[in-house]
Amino acid sequence: MEIDLVGKTMENKQIIFKRYTNESVKETDMELKLGNPIKLEAPKGSNAVLVKNLYFSCDPYMRGRMRDFHRSYIPPFSPGSAIEGLGVSKVLDSDDPNFKRGDLVTGYTNWEEYTLIKKTNELRRIQQDDGIPLSYHVGLLGMPGFTAYVGFYEVCAPKKGDYVYVSAASGAVGQLFGQLAKLHGCYVVGSAGTSQKVELLKNKLGFDEAFNYKDESDLESALMRYFPQGIDIYFDNVGGGMLDAALANMRAHGRVAICGMVSQNNRTDPQSFRNMFSIISKRITIKGFLQSDFIHLYPRFLEEITGYYKQGKIVYIENMNHGLETSPAAFVGLFSGKNVGKQVICVATE
Amino acid sequence: MEIDLVGKTMENKQIIFKRYTNESVKETDMELKLGNPIKLEAPKGSNAVLVKNLYFSCDPYMRGRMRDFHRSYIPPFSPGSAIEGLGVSKVLDSDDPNFKRGDLVTGYTNWEEYTLIKKTNELRRIQQDDGIPLSYHVGLLGMPGFTAYVGFYEVCAPKKGDYVYVSAASGAVGQLFGQLAKLHGCYVVGSAGTSQKVELLKNKLGFDEAFNYKDESDLESALMRYFPQGIDIYFDNVGGGMLDAALANMRAHGRVAICGMVSQNNRTDPQSFRNMFSIISKRITIKGFLQSDFIHLYPRFLEEITGYYKQGKIVYIENMNHGLETSPAAFVGLFSGKNVGKQVICVATE
Repeated sequence: MEIDLVGKTMENKQIIFKRYTNESVKETDMELKLGNPIKLEAPKGSNAVLVKNLYFSCDPYMRGRMRDFHRSYIPPFSPGSAIEGLGVSKVLDSDDPNFKRGDLVTGYTNWEEYTLIKKTNELRRIQQDDGIPLSYHVGLLGMPGFTAYVGFYEVCAPKKGDYVYVSAASGAVGQLFGQLAKLHGCYVVGSAGTSQKVELLKNKLGFDEAFNYKDESDLESALMRYFPQGIDIYFDNVGGGMLDAALANMRAHGRVAICGMVSQNNRTDPQSFRNMFSIISKRITIKGFLQSDFIHLYPRFLEEITGYYKQGKIVYIENMNHGLETSPAAFVGLFSGKNVGKQVICVATE
Repeated sequence: MEIDLVGKTMENKQIIFKRYTNESVKETDMELKLGNPIKLEAPKGSNAVLVKNLYFSCDPYMRGRMRDFHRSYIPPFSPGSAIEGLGVSKVLDSDDPNFKRGDLVTGYTNWEEYTLIKKTNELRRIQQDDGIPLSYHVGLLGMPGFTAYVGFYEVCAPKKGDYVYVSAASGAVGQLFGQLAKLHGCYVVGSAGTSQKVELLKNKLGFDEAFNYKDESDLESALMRYFPQGIDIYFDNVGGGMLDAALANMRAHGRVAICGMVSQNNRTDPQSFRNMFSIISKRITIKGFLQSDFIHLYPRFLEEITGYYKQGKIVYIENMNHGLETSPAAFVGLFSGKNVGKQVICVATE
């Protein structure tokens, strides 16, 4: 149907980024903008593609782009413009010979109905596969899944039998990290913030143990209870007090991989650490990483994880909201743990 | 002369460890004990050696042993017993066939005039060399020097042209680390706590730049001034605010080696960090290490560093105090930076 629209001018609903903030992000830091017209074509000579957006990914790293801070690995958003994020889209018109009308693609797009994507070299064409939900290309098979994959195999130097702890364990990244650790023969404990998530970790995601960190008055003691022998690998998605508690519980030569720090995303005030000395006494390695540094491994990742999924060796939990206008609330919900699993917005179904 | 003493019973002056403390260590946490008799012999069947102590090493790690904390890599001292530390000693009598009367050895001994050393397998016989001061075997050629050596070559993955920052740079470890970095073709900046030390760093130890951290109200800005392009390698001897300031100034893929944390040794209260997020955005690796994990490299280290020293490629600064009874004050002085260079006590000259 949408093919008939090519060349037409349509309304293009958008989610606009309004203002930088150092406070907790609120829905009112974004707004729905109606009536914005867009001509549904990829202009000749632009080398661009014009896409219809199908799924948006809500990811915690986006919080960093809502701060007026230019020294990070990714520039801040522009107030007044649509929010940029990863998504799954369908090509309506293409001036790039590598893409054609009807192609499904994933990569950076904008939070709007239709987007003219100029950086087509950063798009990946999706080989559609009825066995795999399209939205998984921003989750299990997208940046979060790839983060778990390289975090586990490339950063944490895992060994069979290692004791592995994952925080934010039911989230987009943590749930795959934990499952990969189980497949590798590790003992895996996850933490999350609701009893529902704890149940999922134990009964659906196959973690050996799981606990609700909000029920624990003393995280250091909680970890000592779940890891009486200590932790070999901590996959840190939250930072702050959880990282400090984990440091005290690491085994000698333990590895901490840091990629998230959700708990830090709304903070600029200092964080307290009591256990930094453990870094020396336990010879801990702490490694920050970005999945983008490992992009050469993406094809291998896609093949392996697709295989595991089809063999039923891993599962993936999504939190799907429907409608472009639900995006701001869904995004804000990430930081209070409202999402159960990977947060995705379904904008349109082809 | 002392050979005549074998089998005799002598007074053995000792420095006794009195009590555990979480406060700053004071001289009164130790005491000189007189009148303690010792028979100068290694009993048959003991496999021990009886030594006369010549030099004691004052090292910051010893502070950790003055706390009643049993989860570290080395057990706490026993109140009422002589302080244990690294030293250089002369064998007066030996029941171990590997050592003989007159041998010079280095390893763990006690802060007393004569010691019966039972763990002789941890002693290293010193090949005496008139070109190298005996006391260097607890400094340049001892644990501190070895810490710098493995810290630089094995932990920091140095490359020619790297920008290297060393804190506590004129200390026992830092001064060698900086010189090795210079020999490797790095740009090296050190910090210290007096203008005298800053002068030594620049004019005697060959650092490219040096500064007095006590003159800086904002360490983060100070480092930005000395490293406008950022830091590739930070060798952290102090922890706390300096580590936090360095994190903000690291380059992408920067490495932080942590072996000291002198500033933490008297503290149990939490430390504030503002810049933990840099660990992710700059993909920083922080590695705690203990030189003892690399002990297989000791022979190579001895050969290389002895060679560099004899060729005049490196120098080593010692702060030598004289007399067993000066040990407590010298040790306490480490934590206020009183020592200029490696702190050693000369107990006897053969």
